[in-house]
Amino acid sequence: MTHATTDALAVIMAGGSGERFWPLSRRHRPKQLLTLSESGGSLLEQAVARARRVFPPERTFIATTAALRSAIVDARLGVPPENVLAEPDRRNTAGALIFVAAALRARLGQGADPVLAVLTADHHIGQPERFAATLSACLAEAATGESLVVIGIPPSRPETGYGYLELDEAKGAVAVREGLPVLPVVRFREKPDAATAEAFVASGRFLWNSGMFFWRLSRFISELAAAAPELAEIAAALAASLARGDESQAVELFRRLPDISIDHALMERAQCVRLVRGTFPWDDVGAWDALMRSFAHDPDGNVAVGDPVLVGARDCLVYNDAGERIAVCAVGVSELAIIVTDDAVLVTPKARAQEVREAVRRLRQRDAPQL
Amino acid sequence: MTHATTDALAVIMAGGSGERFWPLSRRHRPKQLLTLSESGGSLLEQAVARARRVFPPERTFIATTAALRSAIVDARLGVPPENVLAEPDRRNTAGALIFVAAALRARLGQGADPVLAVLTADHHIGQPERFAATLSACLAEAATGESLVVIGIPPSRPETGYGYLELDEAKGAVAVREGLPVLPVVRFREKPDAATAEAFVASGRFLWNSGMFFWRLSRFISELAAAAPELAEIAAALAASLARGDESQAVELFRRLPDISIDHALMERAQCVRLVRGTFPWDDVGAWDALMRSFAHDPDGNVAVGDPVLVGARDCLVYNDAGERIAVCAVGVSELAIIVTDDAVLVTPKARAQEVREAVRRLRQRDAPQL
Repeated sequence: MTHATTDALAVIMAGGSGERFWPLSRRHRPKQLLTLSESGGSLLEQAVARARRVFPPERTFIATTAALRSAIVDARLGVPPENVLAEPDRRNTAGALIFVAAALRARLGQGADPVLAVLTADHHIGQPERFAATLSACLAEAATGESLVVIGIPPSRPETGYGYLELDEAKGAVAVREGLPVLPVVRFREKPDAATAEAFVASGRFLWNSGMFFWRLSRFISELAAAAPELAEIAAALAASLARGDESQAVELFRRLPDISIDHALMERAQCVRLVRGTFPWDDVGAWDALMRSFAHDPDGNVAVGDPVLVGARDCLVYNDAGERIAVCAVGVSELAIIVTDDAVLVTPKARAQEVREAVRRLRQRDAPQL
Repeated sequence: MTHATTDALAVIMAGGSGERFWPLSRRHRPKQLLTLSESGGSLLEQAVARARRVFPPERTFIATTAALRSAIVDARLGVPPENVLAEPDRRNTAGALIFVAAALRARLGQGADPVLAVLTADHHIGQPERFAATLSACLAEAATGESLVVIGIPPSRPETGYGYLELDEAKGAVAVREGLPVLPVVRFREKPDAATAEAFVASGRFLWNSGMFFWRLSRFISELAAAAPELAEIAAALAASLARGDESQAVELFRRLPDISIDHALMERAQCVRLVRGTFPWDDVGAWDALMRSFAHDPDGNVAVGDPVLVGARDCLVYNDAGERIAVCAVGVSELAIIVTDDAVLVTPKARAQEVREAVRRLRQRDAPQL
């Protein structure tokens, strides 16, 4: 175990709704609690195991929502139950990280100023040694208290489903931490269209935004105050009410937070964003097509889970989560994701799996029980 | 009601296994017992209602297998239970019609020589008035005792899933019955490939084989004796054992029959086959693509049954037979048949639905309960 600076904490983000993995994922069983690879264990278990290489359990936190807290505590991940921080509601990543900041302030006291490693639970990450080395470099940079640090992933394809980080063409490394260069980020770019993504990848100046951030708590709060003073005010009031144990006021304050990402609320506006390249295998398990990358394929390019009958099927993901109770047959189809659970069936081209959210929205309008 | 010659009987064939409609159809609930159109009622109910225009109930028989007999009797179709003739096993259409001949001989006595109208239960047929008029012409021709009569359907597309009847180019009508011409058939052609089907349709000399036959019982038996003497022998012995009430010998004799169609066993070899054109709307509900022709489409060309959620789906058949218990979502797919029941899911391009039989075969190998 490579222990991080003693005041560093891991915060694993595990509050996602996982709509893109419907019908496997549900309100109370989101993506991060699913076993979505052959390596075994849920994505969250794997995230905790990766963090364990750098952080002892008592310094590992899991940030989730109240709705998921008990499922996560019950999953017995080796993290103390009191380290599972439950946001009262869903307020995107900005809300989640403001809640984490406030909760840690309330718990550790105003004097404490830990370095936070904000880690994701919904990615496949390989080569844990290399991942741990990247973490150490990021923590060392963040420990200076001078910057907000993000891991950038060198893109391997012109993915349109990810955000990108733009490097400054003129500037090289501003520092070297634990042997890795630290680079200034000039811009956050949202999910590009296909042509833009091609251009990004061709330029060599863009990296995928991994969503993993590192900062000293005081730097986070001061940058938030500069970029979004109204949010910083709520954060301070929230920390005070949590410290007092005034739950209902905390809920009220939290609900005032807008539903925006930390990228929009803070990172895009901050001047001191630095990047460390993550050269470990990384995959945002964002949808079914990503899931296929982590399972073995049959000779026809299919990934078959749960013993479906495939006749002339090619390059499909056929996932039967209902076992022998439901016989699933795919005949003569190509490039589809066919997902079957006890109470739901989804059929979609793998490439259009992002649109599953629209189907989930319609089911919600119907008040369907399968959510 | 246009009553047929008083010695005519309707025999509705309802012994099919309906594998092509799996998972809706099952061993004990074949296609003919499914409600597969918006006009209401199962295909068999509709067939009985059509026959009723020409035949009184006591002269209407249903030929099925022992496995399906009780389901058909329970369906209360208005046909006397003793008129449901149950073959001991499955032996294709030749076996079914030989069993019918033997059972009628046994029941009516050697002296009886009724005209039989062999009708199908697995087709959609429109314009019942016109259908009844065609039946009357066929019965009148068959009543002469000189020919085996078949209804030919003028083809509306180069369908490769049907058999074709070839007319004699040189000869015109050999008779006119009830105002309709009776034409000689020179050949039965099996399901053609696409190019052959195109040529058939272009020539104007080919009609679809409707599978509806008409003959006097004595003519059927004498033609069978000429074309397939070994089958005629079994037929005679079967009639005798049924007349004696020797059930076990009847079963034994029946099981000796080969698994071949009446086309192969008799019609292709007989010299006296005549055709009457069926100008009523006719559709062999052979598979999912045919089913689509009998349901209303949404503006995107989809047929949706059982309230599935469709997002950007085009020209699909999405059939949810499981009701609210299973939420079915099709996102961004085209030209698919998606069939969901309580315990099975089938996804296949509509055009490849014939291959569903292979999936059923594999399920049988697994001894799956969903058959």
